[in-house]
Amino acid sequence: MLENKNPQRTSISQLGEFGLIEHLTKNFEIRQPSTLKGIGDDAAVIDFKDKKAVVSTDLLIEGIHFDLAYMPLKHLGYKAVVVNLSDICAMNAKPTQITVSIAISNRFPLEAVEELYAGIALAANEYKVDVIGGDTTSSQTGLFISITALGEADESEIVYRNGAKANDLLVVSGDLGAAYMGLQVLEREKQVFLVNPQSQPDLDAYTYLIERQLKPEARTDVRTLLHALEIKPTSMIDVSDGLSSEILHLCKQSGVGCNLFEEKLPIDPQFINTCEEFNIDATTVAINGGEDYELLFTIGLDDFDKIKANPNFTVIGHMVDEKEGAHLITRANTKIALKARGWNALEE
Amino acid sequence: MLENKNPQRTSISQLGEFGLIEHLTKNFEIRQPSTLKGIGDDAAVIDFKDKKAVVSTDLLIEGIHFDLAYMPLKHLGYKAVVVNLSDICAMNAKPTQITVSIAISNRFPLEAVEELYAGIALAANEYKVDVIGGDTTSSQTGLFISITALGEADESEIVYRNGAKANDLLVVSGDLGAAYMGLQVLEREKQVFLVNPQSQPDLDAYTYLIERQLKPEARTDVRTLLHALEIKPTSMIDVSDGLSSEILHLCKQSGVGCNLFEEKLPIDPQFINTCEEFNIDATTVAINGGEDYELLFTIGLDDFDKIKANPNFTVIGHMVDEKEGAHLITRANTKIALKARGWNALEE
Repeated sequence: MLENKNPQRTSISQLGEFGLIEHLTKNFEIRQPSTLKGIGDDAAVIDFKDKKAVVSTDLLIEGIHFDLAYMPLKHLGYKAVVVNLSDICAMNAKPTQITVSIAISNRFPLEAVEELYAGIALAANEYKVDVIGGDTTSSQTGLFISITALGEADESEIVYRNGAKANDLLVVSGDLGAAYMGLQVLEREKQVFLVNPQSQPDLDAYTYLIERQLKPEARTDVRTLLHALEIKPTSMIDVSDGLSSEILHLCKQSGVGCNLFEEKLPIDPQFINTCEEFNIDATTVAINGGEDYELLFTIGLDDFDKIKANPNFTVIGHMVDEKEGAHLITRANTKIALKARGWNALEE
Repeated sequence: MLENKNPQRTSISQLGEFGLIEHLTKNFEIRQPSTLKGIGDDAAVIDFKDKKAVVSTDLLIEGIHFDLAYMPLKHLGYKAVVVNLSDICAMNAKPTQITVSIAISNRFPLEAVEELYAGIALAANEYKVDVIGGDTTSSQTGLFISITALGEADESEIVYRNGAKANDLLVVSGDLGAAYMGLQVLEREKQVFLVNPQSQPDLDAYTYLIERQLKPEARTDVRTLLHALEIKPTSMIDVSDGLSSEILHLCKQSGVGCNLFEEKLPIDPQFINTCEEFNIDATTVAINGGEDYELLFTIGLDDFDKIKANPNFTVIGHMVDEKEGAHLITRANTKIALKARGWNALEE
């Protein structure tokens, strides 16, 4: 499924380090008025004026975070940017700049690196963030992508993980679990392909799931939506490791507990069908799946009327006193303690 | 030569990703008043007030940028921070925060990662920068370190690469080439060790060179020194890839040429002795060696009197019209075109 079917292979060593960086970054435009100096000096210079700066960083590693057998390089570049922007969104801030550092082994020709950068450029363009710096070097093996995202916000707008109070409502944007099931579909196709390289996969029944896995989006719109609704969340986090794990972060840092209602979980029909086909419990995936990059936040009870009919958001539970703990309330009305069973990059 | 002789080996997977990050970062203090929120949320929050933000990022990769056979992990952590701070210094800005992302294979026990972080913490403490975020994950093989450094400066203080004018003086801090010769000494000892593991190296004659290689420092003091001298450089860069390569960057971006004088190059007696011992031309190493992390800058001719007697700085040449090109003027008064022969991470 690799997109790069271009037979041309130019060795990256032909260009040299400076040549490669110049070649890859020459088309990056500066769009943010706050970017005074982008690529091309020892460091970039940014003028945040009276805004606060928000900074986050993430590392994506071949064989740990992605598998090039089914992750096209252009999608990988796009996703690498998105997962970082998502962290900025989770502070209720506006992403403005990124730095991109890449280490690649010599098995990648220049054309492959160009594909990766095309995805990075596409995301930068889509989200109007400036690529202001980075580093491109070789690795002995594998592909490593390290991105740092910068954003801006008024101090009064910024939402931390630690502001949830008992009785606050727990809200999530979009739907859950689809990215995980997209990965299961792709893993299955990879196994089929290994057995029979001639097989042509029919993935029509899984398009939404695969898109959620290969081309997730950062919810930069949520900030605008909440602003229009005149809601400031009391706490917020993005769903990268799985809903359950993120709820526990909010609970721990806010000193509260939580009741999450199984019947309220927003899930897509395609997701339900695929869970049935794979004989996997949909609720388990929805709360542990990860990589949804939706925003999970708490709001005061007073804000319920503002949000209840909004199709972008679903109220999935409410916060309780810390001593009550964090639980999933099932459809059968049993109470199960939430555990951070999310995807763990360090598990052996 | 690895420092970590601790026989205890705790598997990093025992802690899990969140546990590892918490374990490694719990002792990082916040010292900068601009850091509103450090580690522990989706992103850090910084208040640059009326200062401009300066951002730089660098990637260090095992087998490409360092060899753990002679680079103790604690030194590696220290150096990884320093090379990033050096980029902030090269903008005439003050380093204030860093993010640290690390990918490690399971062959490293927890104690090794602790050593690495001890070096990072030492540098953060030494330079009073806050560690405000990062990512710690596993790699399939090798050790990868990605650091992003942030700094602050008044807009009027910031020095770019593109402001040099013909007749400006070319100045460098400290001395040149020692880090490269330190590497040669360490490489030789590694070979000796491979042949005879019982041999005890006597490195007394090379202490300065080895320190320059294993524990370089960022010239955060130069900003203060220049401020006291009432000098604002017209252009500036740090010497990471080698003097020759950096001079060519200043020339290209400023649209000028340069005459560099061999007889003016600041070199240490230990460096000269070791070049003789290795039968390597000292000038070649001084201008191409790299990893000195000194600051190279240009100043107006009017500022000569302010700097001429200062032991921290050496005037090594002057800028000329672009059409005259960039040359080394040898002791024999021959003119040799400068080439960017510096260390290139992408060479095969």
